[in-house]
Amino acid sequence: MGEQAVRDAAVRAGEAAVELAVASRAAKDAALSAMADALVSRRAEIIAANETDVRGARAAGTGAAMLDRLSLDADRIDGMAAGLRQVAGLPDPVGEVVRGSTLPNGLELRQVRVPFGVVGIIYEGRPNVTADAAGLTLKSGNAVLLRGSSSARHSNAAIVAVLRDALTSVGLPADAIGLLPGESRDEVTHLMHARGLVDVLIPRGGAELIRHVVEGSTVPVIETGVGNCHIYVDASADVAMARDIVLNAKTQRPSVCNAAETLLVHAAAADAVLPVLLPALDAAGVTVHGDETVAAQGKALDIAVTPATEEDWGGEYLSLDLAVAVVPSLGAALAHIRRWSTGHSEAIVTGSQAAARTFTARVDAAAVLVNASTRFTDGSEFGFGAEIGISTQKLHARGPMGLPELTSTKYVVTGDGHVRG
Amino acid sequence: MGEQAVRDAAVRAGEAAVELAVASRAAKDAALSAMADALVSRRAEIIAANETDVRGARAAGTGAAMLDRLSLDADRIDGMAAGLRQVAGLPDPVGEVVRGSTLPNGLELRQVRVPFGVVGIIYEGRPNVTADAAGLTLKSGNAVLLRGSSSARHSNAAIVAVLRDALTSVGLPADAIGLLPGESRDEVTHLMHARGLVDVLIPRGGAELIRHVVEGSTVPVIETGVGNCHIYVDASADVAMARDIVLNAKTQRPSVCNAAETLLVHAAAADAVLPVLLPALDAAGVTVHGDETVAAQGKALDIAVTPATEEDWGGEYLSLDLAVAVVPSLGAALAHIRRWSTGHSEAIVTGSQAAARTFTARVDAAAVLVNASTRFTDGSEFGFGAEIGISTQKLHARGPMGLPELTSTKYVVTGDGHVRG
Repeated sequence: MGEQAVRDAAVRAGEAAVELAVASRAAKDAALSAMADALVSRRAEIIAANETDVRGARAAGTGAAMLDRLSLDADRIDGMAAGLRQVAGLPDPVGEVVRGSTLPNGLELRQVRVPFGVVGIIYEGRPNVTADAAGLTLKSGNAVLLRGSSSARHSNAAIVAVLRDALTSVGLPADAIGLLPGESRDEVTHLMHARGLVDVLIPRGGAELIRHVVEGSTVPVIETGVGNCHIYVDASADVAMARDIVLNAKTQRPSVCNAAETLLVHAAAADAVLPVLLPALDAAGVTVHGDETVAAQGKALDIAVTPATEEDWGGEYLSLDLAVAVVPSLGAALAHIRRWSTGHSEAIVTGSQAAARTFTARVDAAAVLVNASTRFTDGSEFGFGAEIGISTQKLHARGPMGLPELTSTKYVVTGDGHVRG
Repeated sequence: MGEQAVRDAAVRAGEAAVELAVASRAAKDAALSAMADALVSRRAEIIAANETDVRGARAAGTGAAMLDRLSLDADRIDGMAAGLRQVAGLPDPVGEVVRGSTLPNGLELRQVRVPFGVVGIIYEGRPNVTADAAGLTLKSGNAVLLRGSSSARHSNAAIVAVLRDALTSVGLPADAIGLLPGESRDEVTHLMHARGLVDVLIPRGGAELIRHVVEGSTVPVIETGVGNCHIYVDASADVAMARDIVLNAKTQRPSVCNAAETLLVHAAAADAVLPVLLPALDAAGVTVHGDETVAAQGKALDIAVTPATEEDWGGEYLSLDLAVAVVPSLGAALAHIRRWSTGHSEAIVTGSQAAARTFTARVDAAAVLVNASTRFTDGSEFGFGAEIGISTQKLHARGPMGLPELTSTKYVVTGDGHVRG
């Protein structure tokens, strides 16, 4: 799709957004139900389209993990439908009065949540994101322009056709859900430059995609997150608690952004913690990349420790690998985190109220956790009901983003002939 | 200042920001008082530096209005000091718990306001902005990198030297207030590209500066506002109220972004409204740029009306000019506003509750006003106590920005050994 076609699609989305902004919650929830029903009743055509994508990906030599993420079956489609029904059950953020007062001159001031307008979402080869993103943007009153991976383009086209029909069936504009076909990478560039037509862009995917969008877009971007998450085990930590939290944060789901990547251990606790943690990590299949102190402990315990380099402190493994360092103090842990954190989730395990207070005050990240696994940084765990991503930027939204984070606000000011003196 | 020097300045600001983020309100307010005292006690050196700038500007043929904005005297410096003392009296946004709950699993979740870190502010030739911006960023716990106009560089250097000394005198890091010297335009470019070192950029000034920063920056930007503000006079409007609001919005201070630039009159009200408004505008020295209906009315009233072109609907006069059109319906007014609005402030004058409800629901702008002048869109009028600018973007902040808009948030999550199942 060329630049003019992308801009035309954005204009159509903008026209739909005008209607969606004033749609009632009842109308939007009816649409979400109709969308869910349609996904289930038209599973066969979605699965047929998906088979074309999967065949193509297999022919292109795509690996098993990617193929799995790309593949749809009846259960996965039912899961997408269930997700839409869940979003229908969430409160509507639009119209919420964020603050309000009557000014001394009698003017009534209300700051009210309103949709952004047109939200662009750029994502990779998981077709279920198509329905999830469409549901969340619809509920928050936004039109969406979806740009999925070209590897999933038949699946995405089938899903969006079903969703658009469902919108029409309840009287909402089909263009509230638009899809760029995924024919070329230029589509992403055109979307990034559709300033004034697209209100906000949300890239979801790997670090490279996100950096590309963040650095090149003239449309405002919400950056979703790479997570180089640390766990600092303080001098006063309970050793068993530290073990359980580290194991959970590292191994429960190593491929996600809120998994732990680095463990920092206070020197005063190292002799108690490492002889418990290193064997536990080893038993869980985790490769430890350690500094010299850790390597020495590993040698004494007969556990292999890979020497850590700068890349280990700075990288995001997303695998059963963990960088481990011993630090002389809480201050040194804070300095290490400041140096290497991506600002996603940072945890302390401690028995000390003073250490917890210092850590939560001084660590600059979307989520700072005390005596809890980094895996809890998640919209669903936080009780938001749904999540469009986890923001690691500081502007607008930081941390898990639910429906309110998909809105802006406006001030409504009501007088009876007020003029300024 | 070259790229490396700008980056070094940003690094120093970042180090100061770490301390400032945990400074108490008492410490910050003491600093603001010390800054105010120092401005007053060292007026002479600031005025001497300013004279150098004014001499240079005069030699360069700068116009009277610009020279006035550049010039400082004892009263203006006292005004800057008073502004700092006023900021000291405002509540500290840092630490405010925006939302909080205890999750079903017992985790305590708190979303807490925190400073951005390093805020870059790019502005034009008004040296009083230097003190205002430094005060607001300091109170909100941020370090600031200021980049003023080269025409004011001696004034800015003198003011910043005074403010930094005041910070040192109360034990806060001087690098919390940094100044790029204003030697070259490249400094702006380097600041725009200091991603990871600068957390947010706020350009304040003309449309060209703002567009340059918004389109070229890899650092997140808060766009402050051009205002092509409309007043729509509905069929049901009270004519005297319409006259008073239009005159106030147009003439009370025509050079500012919340002044009205276009008047739309419902056709059913035109015969009642225009014979009152056109003479009143004429008497106030306003040049009307009208459509054919307005021109015909002007002719009948013997009042000169300039024919309006597309430029009149799209531009921001910032002068005693007003574009005026007659529209057949509220819907046509909404369409006109949607086409030409810059999303700043839009007003309706109406006696109809239904029209007011439709207008406030359907107009997409930072502020939508009913029976009130657009001039009220202002941080001070809204009771925010101070204003860093008026955002016309939808991300993060929209409308007048006070201290809370200079902050981000983080989630603090407290457990007692919680792991995810």
